[in-house]
Formats: sequence, structure tokens, C-alpha cells
Amino acid sequence: MPPVIVAIAGGVGAARFLRGLLEIVDAGNVTAIVNTGDDTVFHGLHVSPDIDTVVYTTAAAIDADRGWGLAGETWTAMESLQRYADHGALTWFNLGDRDLATHLWRTGRLRDGASLSEVTDQLRHAWGLGFRVLPMTDDPVATMLNTATGKLGFQEYFVGHHHDVAVSGVHFEGVLSSRPAPGVIEAIMSADAIVVCPSNPLVSIGPVLAVPGIREALVARRDVCVAVSPIVDGAALKGPADRMLRELGHESSVAGVARLYAPFISTLVIDEADRMRADEVRAVGLKVAITDTIMSKPGVGASLARVVLQAASGKVPV
Amino acid sequence: MPPVIVAIAGGVGAARFLRGLLEIVDAGNVTAIVNTGDDTVFHGLHVSPDIDTVVYTTAAAIDADRGWGLAGETWTAMESLQRYADHGALTWFNLGDRDLATHLWRTGRLRDGASLSEVTDQLRHAWGLGFRVLPMTDDPVATMLNTATGKLGFQEYFVGHHHDVAVSGVHFEGVLSSRPAPGVIEAIMSADAIVVCPSNPLVSIGPVLAVPGIREALVARRDVCVAVSPIVDGAALKGPADRMLRELGHESSVAGVARLYAPFISTLVIDEADRMRADEVRAVGLKVAITDTIMSKPGVGASLARVVLQAASGKVPV
Repeated sequence: MPPVIVAIAGGVGAARFLRGLLEIVDAGNVTAIVNTGDDTVFHGLHVSPDIDTVVYTTAAAIDADRGWGLAGETWTAMESLQRYADHGALTWFNLGDRDLATHLWRTGRLRDGASLSEVTDQLRHAWGLGFRVLPMTDDPVATMLNTATGKLGFQEYFVGHHHDVAVSGVHFEGVLSSRPAPGVIEAIMSADAIVVCPSNPLVSIGPVLAVPGIREALVARRDVCVAVSPIVDGAALKGPADRMLRELGHESSVAGVARLYAPFISTLVIDEADRMRADEVRAVGLKVAITDTIMSKPGVGASLARVVLQAASGKVPV
Repeated sequence: MPPVIVAIAGGVGAARFLRGLLEIVDAGNVTAIVNTGDDTVFHGLHVSPDIDTVVYTTAAAIDADRGWGLAGETWTAMESLQRYADHGALTWFNLGDRDLATHLWRTGRLRDGASLSEVTDQLRHAWGLGFRVLPMTDDPVATMLNTATGKLGFQEYFVGHHHDVAVSGVHFEGVLSSRPAPGVIEAIMSADAIVVCPSNPLVSIGPVLAVPGIREALVARRDVCVAVSPIVDGAALKGPADRMLRELGHESSVAGVARLYAPFISTLVIDEADRMRADEVRAVGLKVAITDTIMSKPGVGASLARVVLQAASGKVPV
């Protein structure tokens, strides 16, 4: 029997890992549980950035250079919005014309009473994807950041302020009353391998862990739970994870990631660049697997996924 | 002093009349009070078809061939929506990419707490228009039709069913608890001339009249209130007004229009084609002005507007 795999996913890094994973396993055995703390309403439209990045990337439709949105995109609606720039139009968040269709459709479906789970399942079918994509929850959760310029929603921080502002706190509005989306706990409890994808530990993986029941389920499955460090040689490959870790009192290193994840993972996969720090990871009670983790080159995602699956089955390459 | 003019407006016919009117009077003296009974939420976006047609037309931005939406429009978002056609996407109502900007902006502003009046005033400013555009009300009113295929919203009837289904009743949901938008009653009461534009009497002018207080204000100003018949030689120039008048027990003729409007207008402007029926209009107590009313040729709108203003001041060309 091929292993049944669950991936805890944020946006870009997770999506790239999943693309590699899907090169080596049957899609029908994979479930991605995706962060929705970044979900926002723009112009009345429900935007799910991480779900869309996962779907567009694994459907090979992502704009690889930009890292978000669709390849071959046009921007007519956003350009036309400039007419209203002096009259309160929200112009700092770009939505391409093709991408808008996804948000228009999703918003209409949600208004018709569909759950985010149902819409997300239709989304992946519409893009021809064979793996399951589950939002972490169907309930509204909003990742909020306390920053030097006040409290910001995640997209305000990330896009509006280009994540170039000091963060003094993170919290997830609504998370305490949220419930895991249908199938989330069952998928975790029945998985042969669970991978915490290389996403921002605090604002991509953090919200998923904060949904009541999910962290506890992962703790119960710690023996098959493997994370890929999003920090390589002390830095984030993309985004503000390194800076944010430091600002919030953590270490921006594989050891810092190890300490955050130790309660619910048994193995941390680190990059060759961090080989010298493997013992620091082992010191917090984790096994270490060392391999190439930078997925910008073809083939790395698949070989990384192979290492993760080996680690989850107890075979740890060092 | 130039006359202060109020126009009671639906969509296409009203917009063309206003364009002619603005060729002969100072825009600062004109207020359009526009039907919002067709307003609908599509994909979560607030669409105001008649307001947009009035604004786009008078801003010379309308697609003249199509009769709605913007010239030079692209349709990338709608084409992309086809991906979700089998998953509940609403695909029967087209919104162009440029036009989408208006709806995105409007929806965002309304969510931020702005009233439709405020947004509409910003809209006309954003398009460089010097005349006032007032929605009939800031409250939600929905024109609903009882039809052979069940109860339909106006756009479902008009666009979704190509107004090709028998209508057995019209009502305006929410209208009894609606209030005229700020300035509507004041504009009517202080106008030197009021024109009921050549729009569908039942579903374009009808909703405006049904907002409590507006019809009464027009009745009080009957002496300066002039209508342009939307029916020429028994037929509507555009849309289903003729058929709908008959289906709802009225006559599709200038006489039928005259009977509907007699309580609040003193003069009906009819087309040369209806000269032989002028006496039927006079028989219901109205004065008649006869001129070219078909505004497809350049100059007709302006000369029609001149006749309307003469009629409102008591000079009736026959």
C-alpha cells in the first residue's frame, strides 16, 4: 500500500514542495491542509491566498517569476481601478483579471451558502487536481500583526507594507471558536506520513496549529510527522520569516525552527547548508535529515519529498 | 437665471436623453434621480446598472453598439469564469474587466460604510461629470417580476431570460420601507423643469415613483413635469416595455403612457410618428408636444431636450 500523506501548508514554499511530492506519489493519496489565516475580503471578494497559491502552483498555472497569481495574467480591472484612487479605492492589492474569476466565483458560492471546504474542493477539481485540498477551517480566522505602525491584517502587513515593518506580536482572530474543517482531523489521524511544509512557522503554519484540535492531533502523530525547515543558513528563502522569528524572540535558524516544532514533529529536514547545526536540532530531541531543500532547481522538490517520506517511515538520511 | 432641471431616469433611454440635455444646458443645473430597483449583487459585487449606464453614457464612455458597459472593454475575467461553469459559477451576466473596477470599488466603499448616494456622487466626479446623479434611494429595493417561469429578479428576467418570458406582475421588494436618497425630494420641489425620461414606465420609472414621497412630490410639481414617451408607434425602441405594458393590462401606446403618467405630468412629448394619436393623450388631460424622439441620430437628443424645456415652461410645440 502506498503511504497516505498529509501536508500542512502555507503558500509558496508549501506549494513548491507539494508539486515535488506529486511527482513521486499518487495524488489520490495526498491531502493538503492549508492555512486560511491570510484570507481577506477585498472589494467584497473572498480571497484565499494560500489555497490559491497551492492550487495554481500544483496545476502549473502559477506565475513562477512573480510567485503568486496566474501566468499570462492581465491587469485591466486593477488599472481601471486607478480612476477611483482618489475616491477611496483599495489599490495596494493586485488581483489579475484571470485570478478575479476565482474570487468572483468563490464569493458567489460562499454567498449561496457553500462552505469554504466545498468551494475549495470544487476549486481543485476545476483545476484538474487529484489531491485533496482542505482549508484548515471553514470558520473565519484572521492573522493579525501588532507592528510598529499599529495592528495590521496579514495582507496589509505583507503586501501593503511589503513586510517591511517590525512585528511585536501575532494573533489569530476568531481561532478560538474555529473548528477544523471536515476531514482535517481524520486525515491527520489516519496518515502514514505528515509533512509540515517549508512555510513561515509563525504566520503560515502557526494559524493551522492554532485551530483547536489540530495541534493536539499532530502531537498524537508525532512519530510520523516531519517538517522541512523554511530557514536555510539563518535566512528565509522568501518572505519575512527570518526577521519575524527574531522580532518575536525566536532564533532564525534550524535550531529555532526545531524548538518551535519539537512537540509535534519527530524529524526536521534541513538543508546541506545547515549540516554544521544538525546537533543543535538533535539537542531538542529531534532526528535530523539533511538534503537539498532549495526548490528553485528542477528535481529538488521531488528528491526532497522522497527524503521526507523516508524520514516519516523511520529511515533518516544524514 | 437658467432653469434648474430634474430628470427621473432609468437606463439607456434616459442616459441618451441626458446626453442631449447636457449639450444645451449647464451641467451644474441638472440633477438625475436614477432607478436602483435593478441593482443586484453578482459574485458579491454591488452592480447598479442604471446609474452606470447614465454615468458611462454621459461621460461618452459607453459601448454605443452594445448599449451597456464600457467601450474598448475586455472580458478576461468572464472568460476565466468559464472554468467554474460546472461548479456553480454565475455565467449569464457579463461584467467586463474595466467595468469590474467600478463594481469592485463601489462594493468596497459600501462595505466601508459609505451610502450609495455618496458612492454615486464620487462615481460621477471620477468620470468628470458636472451634473448631480442621485440614486432614488440609499435603501435596498429590488424589482421582482412574476413570470411564466416563476419569480425573477430584474436582471434574471432582463439578461438571464433575455426578457423573453411573459410577465404577470411587478413589485418592488423593500420599497415600502425605503426613503428617498438625500436631496431627491428637495431637488424635485425646487426644480424649474422636471423630465420623466423615455424609460420603461413599469420597471424603470415605476420603482422611482414607488419610493414613498417621490410620486407625491412629482404630483405637487405636475405643472413643470414633462415626460417623453418611451413608446413610439406602439413599440418600445429598446427592451420589453411594449410587451410588458400589454401583459400587465396597459396599452402599448402614447395613450397608455399618458394614462400612467397623467397624475404627475402636465405634458407628454410624443414622436412625430404618433401625431395622429395626440388627441388621445389630450383626452386624459395632458398637453402634447410633438417632435423627433428617436435619439439614434446626432442632434436629436439636444433638440428633444429643448422641446422638453419649452414644454416645462408652458410653451408647447405641436
